[in-house]
Amino acid sequence: MQETNREWYFAERPEGEPTLDSFELREGDAPEPKDGELLVRVRYLSVDPYMRGRMRDAESYAEPWDVGDVLKGGVVGEVVESESDRYEAGDHVTGNGAWADYTVLDADEAAPVDTSVAGLPAHLGVLGMPGRTAYFGLLDAGEPKPGDTVVVSGAAGAVGSVVGQIARLNGCRVVGFAGSDEKTDWLTEDLGFDAAINYKSTDDYAAALDDAAPDGVDVYFDNVGGPITDAVFTKLNLDARVAICGQIAHYNDEGVATGPRKLPLLIAPRARVQGLLIGDYVTRFEEANERLRAWVNSGAVSYTHLRCV
Amino acid sequence: MQETNREWYFAERPEGEPTLDSFELREGDAPEPKDGELLVRVRYLSVDPYMRGRMRDAESYAEPWDVGDVLKGGVVGEVVESESDRYEAGDHVTGNGAWADYTVLDADEAAPVDTSVAGLPAHLGVLGMPGRTAYFGLLDAGEPKPGDTVVVSGAAGAVGSVVGQIARLNGCRVVGFAGSDEKTDWLTEDLGFDAAINYKSTDDYAAALDDAAPDGVDVYFDNVGGPITDAVFTKLNLDARVAICGQIAHYNDEGVATGPRKLPLLIAPRARVQGLLIGDYVTRFEEANERLRAWVNSGAVSYTHLRCV
Repeated sequence: MQETNREWYFAERPEGEPTLDSFELREGDAPEPKDGELLVRVRYLSVDPYMRGRMRDAESYAEPWDVGDVLKGGVVGEVVESESDRYEAGDHVTGNGAWADYTVLDADEAAPVDTSVAGLPAHLGVLGMPGRTAYFGLLDAGEPKPGDTVVVSGAAGAVGSVVGQIARLNGCRVVGFAGSDEKTDWLTEDLGFDAAINYKSTDDYAAALDDAAPDGVDVYFDNVGGPITDAVFTKLNLDARVAICGQIAHYNDEGVATGPRKLPLLIAPRARVQGLLIGDYVTRFEEANERLRAWVNSGAVSYTHLRCV
Repeated sequence: MQETNREWYFAERPEGEPTLDSFELREGDAPEPKDGELLVRVRYLSVDPYMRGRMRDAESYAEPWDVGDVLKGGVVGEVVESESDRYEAGDHVTGNGAWADYTVLDADEAAPVDTSVAGLPAHLGVLGMPGRTAYFGLLDAGEPKPGDTVVVSGAAGAVGSVVGQIARLNGCRVVGFAGSDEKTDWLTEDLGFDAAINYKSTDDYAAALDDAAPDGVDVYFDNVGGPITDAVFTKLNLDARVAICGQIAHYNDEGVATGPRKLPLLIAPRARVQGLLIGDYVTRFEEANERLRAWVNSGAVSYTHLRCV
């Protein structure tokens, strides 16, 4: 364990789309775990859309990163040194750690990883925060009922791919938007989506929805925003539910983006739109974890950690 | 009862803001009530924002008017001839009737009017559809809690003025937007609003809200849309509730209006936005009617039918 420790630092706040200039790789020594802490060899780290918000110098739900900080986020790896009796060297854990070869985690804030269910990366995906976000966002805010049409944007992503599969398990017709034919094929052929729209091969999303969701939209799980969402809002059925999980199309915007006004579209269908944050469900995480593990175990929910990179 | 009957007809579909060209006044004979019907001398008729939608040749929640039709809407008046044993001549009733001196109402669809509580016009306002809309929209979709800040657009209107007063009765801080100093004075001096903003004397609504709603916005009851709503959405507190009752700023739009994107603003506060239609509450109308009557009776809720014309 005397390797050098490579760490990614936040070098400057990006304007618009981030480039490598915002990040700096430094080498140093591995940190020393204190009492109650674990030294973890990081095997996978999660680069999540919400992190774009942390790069801004503005209060939001996730604390902003300071320039000069080590970047942190969800990581999974194995314990190499334990100063806690909760874990021993060799255990697999996940937690909020540094983008580095080695990170220190507080043993109380780390969670054990059961690699018998799925490999390490799945614990940052379907069995991690994205899976739980899909679970609570769809079931709580979306309230899917059998026969409903559920539309998902960012459908091939870590959250969207799980949303669609849970919707399918709930007896819904599932339609996904994704950005390549490879992704849309994966959604329909491997994940059981009823239809998938490659948003890069058409710009008439309303017409594409008329084909893919001929009975309109009962639930919309939105990870993206922008023109896809503009189109979906024109197709909302009576009592439609919209879960706003992400708006990644707008995260690099400087200033306020404009688009078609949507509030007038909510009145006739009496639609409901709900902003989501997974942290609100922390007391119910175990419910999601158990069900997601069971679905992954039985093969009812598929996942991949290569296909959509 | 042998006067001529003046009737307003829908003469042509307007584009943009309607003018008198869309309406035509004709004279004819009073209609004859058939079995089960009432002939009613109309004393007041309700000209409501939703009617702009009925002037379009497009499906929506309210059936479109056909060119050549008599205009219809909420009316209140007295029975002059009854072909039903539910009412007799001289009774006051309200219902959906013609914009005319005389209209026929189905006795089963008319509702009795108790003028001991308030005069006839109030039965098209605080004790009518607008009052019920305020009641259910605020309490059901807005879920106001004591100490919440409730912001209302179109606050001096038939719906908004009742929303603000019910919010006040629920222990909320109430802020209204209205279009003249006379209206804002009425809101704060007569109706007990904590603050009111004349949207015609400022265009920095965000700054006006910082003064009037220094703790942010917990509930927004929106009758209007447009720039007022754009500003309010930037001030939503955690778990804010937004009731979309109307979007009158956009009813004359031809084509789709654009504005600042609001969905990104819903995530951090986990805000909920709900489209409203009063018809969904029809089975609970009596609950609203009773409470509104009691509030009007006790003076807890004030109304006027002249001040804001």
